[in-house]
Amino acid sequence: MSSVVNKRVAIVGAGPSGLAQLRAFQSAAEKGTEIPDIVCFEKQADWGGLWNYTWRTGLDEHGEPCHGSMYRYLWSNAPKECLEFADYTFDEHFGRSIGSYPPRAVLWDYIKGRVEKADVRKWVRFNSPVRMITYADSTEKFTVTVHNHAAGKTYSEEFDFVVVATGHFSVPNVPYFDGVEQFTGRVLHSHDFRDAVEFSGKDVLIIGRSYSAEDIASQCFKYGAKSVTISYRSQPIGYEWPDNIQEVPLLQTIRNKTCSFKDGTSKEVDAIILCTGYIHHYPFLPDELRLTIANVFYPPGLMFDVQAWFARDVILGRKAIPSSAAEMDVDGECWREAERRLTSETETIRFQGDYVKALMTETDYPAFDIEAVGKVWSQWLRHKRENIMTFRDNVYESTMTGKMSTHHHTRWLEALDDSLKSYLRKTEQGF
Amino acid sequence: MSSVVNKRVAIVGAGPSGLAQLRAFQSAAEKGTEIPDIVCFEKQADWGGLWNYTWRTGLDEHGEPCHGSMYRYLWSNAPKECLEFADYTFDEHFGRSIGSYPPRAVLWDYIKGRVEKADVRKWVRFNSPVRMITYADSTEKFTVTVHNHAAGKTYSEEFDFVVVATGHFSVPNVPYFDGVEQFTGRVLHSHDFRDAVEFSGKDVLIIGRSYSAEDIASQCFKYGAKSVTISYRSQPIGYEWPDNIQEVPLLQTIRNKTCSFKDGTSKEVDAIILCTGYIHHYPFLPDELRLTIANVFYPPGLMFDVQAWFARDVILGRKAIPSSAAEMDVDGECWREAERRLTSETETIRFQGDYVKALMTETDYPAFDIEAVGKVWSQWLRHKRENIMTFRDNVYESTMTGKMSTHHHTRWLEALDDSLKSYLRKTEQGF
Repeated sequence: MSSVVNKRVAIVGAGPSGLAQLRAFQSAAEKGTEIPDIVCFEKQADWGGLWNYTWRTGLDEHGEPCHGSMYRYLWSNAPKECLEFADYTFDEHFGRSIGSYPPRAVLWDYIKGRVEKADVRKWVRFNSPVRMITYADSTEKFTVTVHNHAAGKTYSEEFDFVVVATGHFSVPNVPYFDGVEQFTGRVLHSHDFRDAVEFSGKDVLIIGRSYSAEDIASQCFKYGAKSVTISYRSQPIGYEWPDNIQEVPLLQTIRNKTCSFKDGTSKEVDAIILCTGYIHHYPFLPDELRLTIANVFYPPGLMFDVQAWFARDVILGRKAIPSSAAEMDVDGECWREAERRLTSETETIRFQGDYVKALMTETDYPAFDIEAVGKVWSQWLRHKRENIMTFRDNVYESTMTGKMSTHHHTRWLEALDDSLKSYLRKTEQGF
Repeated sequence: MSSVVNKRVAIVGAGPSGLAQLRAFQSAAEKGTEIPDIVCFEKQADWGGLWNYTWRTGLDEHGEPCHGSMYRYLWSNAPKECLEFADYTFDEHFGRSIGSYPPRAVLWDYIKGRVEKADVRKWVRFNSPVRMITYADSTEKFTVTVHNHAAGKTYSEEFDFVVVATGHFSVPNVPYFDGVEQFTGRVLHSHDFRDAVEFSGKDVLIIGRSYSAEDIASQCFKYGAKSVTISYRSQPIGYEWPDNIQEVPLLQTIRNKTCSFKDGTSKEVDAIILCTGYIHHYPFLPDELRLTIANVFYPPGLMFDVQAWFARDVILGRKAIPSSAAEMDVDGECWREAERRLTSETETIRFQGDYVKALMTETDYPAFDIEAVGKVWSQWLRHKRENIMTFRDNVYESTMTGKMSTHHHTRWLEALDDSLKSYLRKTEQGF
């Protein structure tokens, strides 16, 4: 095992993945392992990445692109039992049982609790966007150029390793539609969606059929939109939507406020919300270090946490990685081929479980029952199909503690206040 | 005069200032002067900078911050006679007389006509954001690192000179107000304002008292806002506004939709538009090359065009600049001191005229009557004070051709269509 003394690791981003990486190193240190010098560069003033809600859109107070894509009243769209850390349970954090689909502030409080307990905030430099990273073959070191907004200074430091944890749900993919520049309503990407109340009484058109489309349609319904039209490219989402939500094929043209779809129908709308996904964007990386893929493994869940443990062990010299890119490609291609063969959401869940399991066996990541988590994912799919407007009222068993979640005091459709305080308020009984 | 053969000049940005720089070099070449190799890097797919209207907000199709801050139905807020190029008159471009306050598309058509005639588009590389510029004392050269979105490649080239023409009306200054994160309406900066029709029937709060505040308030009134409240920090704009526009002191707190102001009054509003200006933002420059000022000379007008001629002559070796920064500071401080002594808009107009005159005498910039332009500026101020809702119906004499402008066929308040086609449509008579 090669020594990491005097080695330096840069982690770009203190969001979920960056925090997982910090916790992975701290976990090793806790067990007596000597770890390298760690510096985590975070663009925002606080950690949390996309979990940091911001009322800002577009550019932030420093002129940097706003990182966050979350909105008010956002509740988890998956059971918290699928996101539970093996080394820090929900019960440990809250000291009691809570519901299975908590709102953003509650989930973020939990994620934060784990890294606060690990005491890793001291490794993070805030208000510090990374401008450029280069690698020199001669020194085998990375030069990371960073701006410090607090001091108004740009500086560079050298590192032996760089972990890019900037996320890929931040930079919007914004397609063009014929006539959009003359649309006399409001056009926005889901990245800039903040408050469903703004669309109360409005006819809203949503473009897309993935999680953002599904959730923002539900939000707009919940907060009083007059109608919601969901426009899909290949196939409808297919839930049994309420009467004022309908699905139509892809938007073709926009004339004033009239949107025409591929099936020849049209609809006059007040706002168009582009739930068209995100792009991978690494403007601070040179070509040879930049990942250029469009698709991502589904769904994130605990995956990046296990990946962080694996990356840590590579850096610590505990794991050898193949010496050639070609050799690595062989392994990568096996996984991609398996992914291409997937035909259902159930198969996808199993596929990701296999991937996580394969990674876990390589590290000392705290063991947990991947099959059990897969079963919760399957229940989740069934509950959504049963009723997309009530699936969040279900509860599941923790695969870590074996305990059942508690029904939240208010049904999701009636829970208009999503604050931590309101959520954790004790009531006489469940609903 | 030092030779410029084999020298290279990078111009960052193909907006008004970048185009002025291109035209300045082409003008010298036209007169038989040998000019250096010129490369202009433009982030957008077309030239024009902020004159390129975009329906996009936040980030563009490549994940880069949207440059443009212009909105639909934007008409010039100053007489075109104050913006007329001495080497390319409005009459030459349109072949006939037009009104004095044309809409965006018409003004942009004119600005573009000048550089199309000069045939300088070949010097521009589009879809090419500059990522980083460094300077090496050893080689006395700048290294410019650029991303080419079309090719998906980042590359670097060396230059002897760099002209930064990226503008400073693009990156919004977005202050925080107590309670804004809980406001249940829409919050946006004027940078992201696109269509006043979106605010029809709404109670709108505008923060700020400069040109954006003045114009967006007028736009919202024109397109049917229910009420417009303008909140100022130091003093009201002071025009005689229509009944449903009022001015109040600075916003203090926001609770739900209720905004409270420094004078103890409050107002329930549907939208808050932050007309709070722009910041200087040069993330691609190292500290030692970065300008760190907040204020700007007022108003831009023809100033950057004359500056481009001066910069060209420095690069061509026709003008010597002081060898020390201290020596330059002495001259700069004289101007800044004079600016600090200004007490009225009229004095400011004269001050800027003096500055332009001083620059002009140093170059072969085509002569024009600066005093006459100053007089048009003064008339403009008077017309705005007389009636902020009708000042755009006035016409002025061209200081270049001596000809009077023609009244536009429709009064500004009734002109809801701002297209080039509609504007240039011939009618039987004026209005």
